Amino acid sequence: MNNEEKQPSSLESLRSELNGINRQLLELLSRRAETVREIGRIKEKQGGPEFDPVREQEMLTELVAANPGPFDDKTIRHLFKQIFQASLDLQVQERKKELLV
Amino acid sequence: MNNEEKQPSSLESLRSELNGINRQLLELLSRRAETVREIGRIKEKQGGPEFDPVREQEMLTELVAANPGPFDDKTIRHLFKQIFQASLDLQVQERKKELLV
Repeated sequence: MNNEEKQPSSLESLRSELNGINRQLLELLSRRAETVREIGRIKEKQGGPEFDPVREQEMLTELVAANPGPFDDKTIRHLFKQIFQASLDLQVQERKKELLV
Repeated sequence: MNNEEKQPSSLESLRSELNGINRQLLELLSRRAETVREIGRIKEKQGGPEFDPVREQEMLTELVAANPGPFDDKTIRHLFKQIFQASLDLQVQERKKELLV
């Protein structure tokens, strides 16, 4: 272990850092969902499908190539697939809502 | 729909925005994992457990309270639970590695 001896406040400051990162993640995930929604609206006008497996694979490949760690590539793939799926679910819900109007 | 008429390049620019958001998410997820790892090291020195369900619930409650949409609260909870779990798995792996040394 190459850590210094225990600093009294470091646990607290790390936790506060973690809260900040959580907030930024929330903001980015929400912006991402808005962006995917916009893309969905344009694709709908053009008559395209919501889901584009080729584009999703491209994004995953780029992300894994850029992965700085410490998560392994498998975990990065898993987390982003969950994020992609949530965005897709949102798009599908919106289309359903529109069909019901 | 309150969108303007189709702009030729908007799909492309939205996709480029999405790529940028993906990269920022990757960076934040990685920074988060590093931070959790640091917290894990300190807690290990103090003899504490890796997993703190009360702290995790607090973080989820804060995140849901701050959720700006468009994801619903259930989706936010789901995504962050996946992120928390991945970080915890990383900590557990590290402890195992140390035990094997």
